[in-house]
Amino acid sequence: MTVSSLDLTVGSLTPRLLLGPGPSPVSPRVLRALAHPPLGHLDPQFLAVLDDVNERLRGVFGTTNDVTYAVSGTGSAGMQAALVNALEPGDTAIIGVNGYFGTRLVEMARRLGANVVQVEAEWGRIIEPERVIEAHGKHPGARVLALVQAETSTGAWQPLHEVGAHLRGSETLFVVDAVTALGGIPVEVDQVGADICYSATQKCIGTPPGLSPITYSPKAMRAIGQGRKTPVTSWYFDATVIGTYLGPERRYHHTVPINLFFALHEALREIDEEGLASRFERHGRMGALLREELGARGFTPFTETGRGLPQLTALRLPGDADEASLRSVLLNEHGIEVGGGLGPAKGKIWRVGLMGHGASEESVNRLVEAVDRMGMGRA
Amino acid sequence: MTVSSLDLTVGSLTPRLLLGPGPSPVSPRVLRALAHPPLGHLDPQFLAVLDDVNERLRGVFGTTNDVTYAVSGTGSAGMQAALVNALEPGDTAIIGVNGYFGTRLVEMARRLGANVVQVEAEWGRIIEPERVIEAHGKHPGARVLALVQAETSTGAWQPLHEVGAHLRGSETLFVVDAVTALGGIPVEVDQVGADICYSATQKCIGTPPGLSPITYSPKAMRAIGQGRKTPVTSWYFDATVIGTYLGPERRYHHTVPINLFFALHEALREIDEEGLASRFERHGRMGALLREELGARGFTPFTETGRGLPQLTALRLPGDADEASLRSVLLNEHGIEVGGGLGPAKGKIWRVGLMGHGASEESVNRLVEAVDRMGMGRA
Repeated sequence: MTVSSLDLTVGSLTPRLLLGPGPSPVSPRVLRALAHPPLGHLDPQFLAVLDDVNERLRGVFGTTNDVTYAVSGTGSAGMQAALVNALEPGDTAIIGVNGYFGTRLVEMARRLGANVVQVEAEWGRIIEPERVIEAHGKHPGARVLALVQAETSTGAWQPLHEVGAHLRGSETLFVVDAVTALGGIPVEVDQVGADICYSATQKCIGTPPGLSPITYSPKAMRAIGQGRKTPVTSWYFDATVIGTYLGPERRYHHTVPINLFFALHEALREIDEEGLASRFERHGRMGALLREELGARGFTPFTETGRGLPQLTALRLPGDADEASLRSVLLNEHGIEVGGGLGPAKGKIWRVGLMGHGASEESVNRLVEAVDRMGMGRA
Repeated sequence: MTVSSLDLTVGSLTPRLLLGPGPSPVSPRVLRALAHPPLGHLDPQFLAVLDDVNERLRGVFGTTNDVTYAVSGTGSAGMQAALVNALEPGDTAIIGVNGYFGTRLVEMARRLGANVVQVEAEWGRIIEPERVIEAHGKHPGARVLALVQAETSTGAWQPLHEVGAHLRGSETLFVVDAVTALGGIPVEVDQVGADICYSATQKCIGTPPGLSPITYSPKAMRAIGQGRKTPVTSWYFDATVIGTYLGPERRYHHTVPINLFFALHEALREIDEEGLASRFERHGRMGALLREELGARGFTPFTETGRGLPQLTALRLPGDADEASLRSVLLNEHGIEVGGGLGPAKGKIWRVGLMGHGASEESVNRLVEAVDRMGMGRA
């Protein structure tokens, strides 16, 4: 261990204003709940918190699905859980790919032995629903059709309703990635007809990372329970065995991250107090303000017109700016984190998140002020 | 949502003294670190915390293994990660089973398509090393041989050195479950010759649940990297891809549970300040005190003589006591949590954990006082 590491303490870390693609800022009351002394995972008091979290998650997801809970892992764990439960080797999976997270779905599905049919679109654009429906027409026996509602790598807002309506009554499970969507824009699982929908807590929900809210429709649970020829290869993520803990049996499955559930409970209370409609409106208003302010300074949208997410805006920088070094100045001198680009967007864009507790005028003002002080946009 | 759920807040939960099989009590300074406002997972400040956590984990594990980190999930996630990386369909896995967690290893390995050879012993007893070595003699090509060092369901302390010495130079990977061991008794990965060893943070490390420290030997990494015929089916747990984030490349893999890492960092600082030897001594002393005090009140050891873990003691209750209702009184009227039995030990035992911050005389005294007030042991 180096001498300097001995001096490193969490208390001495410089706080940042988190305006990147997540994690997002966490409110003081959620941080207080996080730091409540832990309870046991079988304590009746904790089980009441857990039940209440699941009930409130149903509200945010817009679903009556019985199997609605939070996976003990980050958003990627939710993606992994969705696919490992749904897919068996040899299954066909139709996956929309217009950014990094679509690509990851493909990678995960392939590792599980699925035959993947990709429906691609340029990064920053949505995938036209008719193209997805057309692909399903060619592969009607596909086990899974997966779309990313809020593509965190590009800021694109993928429409879901037409595809969902098309898949109703089919044997295909509609898998929706709502990692950056949930709590920021309407997800409406039941209305859309999503069969498995997963998210993360560190985006528009306003909890630190480490949990992945997920919901399975009765159709999905039938497909997993009786529809599989082989057991789910992952014991940890198996959606049927976790039910013995979540349900009235209360049988020990694994020790869930107690304190993260405390924080999630408090964040969901905040959401219910604000109301979903007001929360979506707030995210919409802040996103528009940001685009207006940075647009006036020469930033231009990376995302297809009219398809941008309010909670995550991807922007090209004015002039021939070196985004990485400017981003580093923004972080180190102004204490503000924004994200850079991934994959083909690397070096080309900033991704600015205004999510959850961070979706405020103060956030926009602080960013705009820093951009002005850095002399950006005056070229 | 019921009316009562609207009133449920984390702040109003009654605190408990956690003397069960985990989670264990968390110190105020670790809770403070937990509640530090989050940083981004690519922020240089956070990466310094992460590096320091990994370095300190090497110390606690007793290893120089480069690939040492904390999986973004609970202890069961560590078990899942170990097996999904090591095993391919058709591989042979020799697994020691003398309690619940051995049984779970078998279940996980089977789901991954392995042929499992079980070396069984009665619950509460250790598995004699010569029987394990004998099983390996019959299956020298086994890919994995797994033992649970601290069987949380029975309190048995499994010896590892003879088996480890036997496996050196073989192609078999020695997998060690140190979930309840790490930080409470010596694990000594390198000395033992363990190839994959995983743990959890909510036992003797003193952090809330949600992370699973793990370490892979160079032999294990070769077996995973070049030795596999098929890719690791789990993208989330793949030990080779996570390296792109942990290593100098710093490429985004997934958003790790930032605040749990803050807490783990502080807990590891506490461990380094106390010193491992003193910490083991403290756990040993408290375990002995507990056995003495409860022994004097008619509790009798469930675990084989001389094989009990200091940090987790499994005891039969005096007389024909109904353990579940007494345990409920202990929890609800005295605010103390202990664990009941699992599987064949259900209804027969209490499992008392004195782990991490909870391994103190005050814990023992409070428990003994409550037992006396409840009129137990005076029969």
